[in-house]
Amino acid sequence: VSSVLTASGEHLLADFYGIAAAPLKDAAFLERLLREAAQQAGATVLSSHFHIFGEEEGVTGVVLLSESHISIHTWPETGFAALDVFMCGSALPERALQHAARVLKPARQKVTHAERGARSKR
Amino acid sequence: VSSVLTASGEHLLADFYGIAAAPLKDAAFLERLLREAAQQAGATVLSSHFHIFGEEEGVTGVVLLSESHISIHTWPETGFAALDVFMCGSALPERALQHAARVLKPARQKVTHAERGARSKR
Repeated sequence: VSSVLTASGEHLLADFYGIAAAPLKDAAFLERLLREAAQQAGATVLSSHFHIFGEEEGVTGVVLLSESHISIHTWPETGFAALDVFMCGSALPERALQHAARVLKPARQKVTHAERGARSKR
Repeated sequence: VSSVLTASGEHLLADFYGIAAAPLKDAAFLERLLREAAQQAGATVLSSHFHIFGEEEGVTGVVLLSESHISIHTWPETGFAALDVFMCGSALPERALQHAARVLKPARQKVTHAERGARSKR
């Protein structure tokens, strides 16, 4: 039995609280923000896909990356956003998260780090 | 200071090891699987987006849901897949994960549960 590196992925789950409602309703703004965040991390954007639930409602969106993905789901009515930054390889997911926090200015954030697929026995 | 429910999301991060290479290269198969998984969970599919890196390489894909998303990133060369099931509301993300595991038959899996945005002080 040997241990092999199957993939080396870092996944940051960020819960952002206390954001102004306006940016959380603006799909075009959020799409631009997540693409910029990917760039800041040194990741390569493949495509991005955003959905608006209604004029005064939240947004759901994803940026697919060569290195995995960034996703966001927003609730403008409570000022909440759930942001995920999942990157494999040499990209720096923390930089993407820092960029998003700098722009969205959450009053409070809770970030969970998860290592994905670090090692496998076989 | 009162505590309010800002969103009620359950996020399952599943690392699947020891999967056969063939399904992990098959974007159409994986897209169908993740859409079925969403259905099994009682979630509503908005759209799905899959990317193939090359004929013998991995797949990156996402299904956007009214309830958030399901994503997958695969490494056929090591039999590894990173699956995320993030659902808000009354959908049952465990059922989506069970369906994916039943079909992909990983030799080993590691699942991390994360509560997203459960409560906020304000």
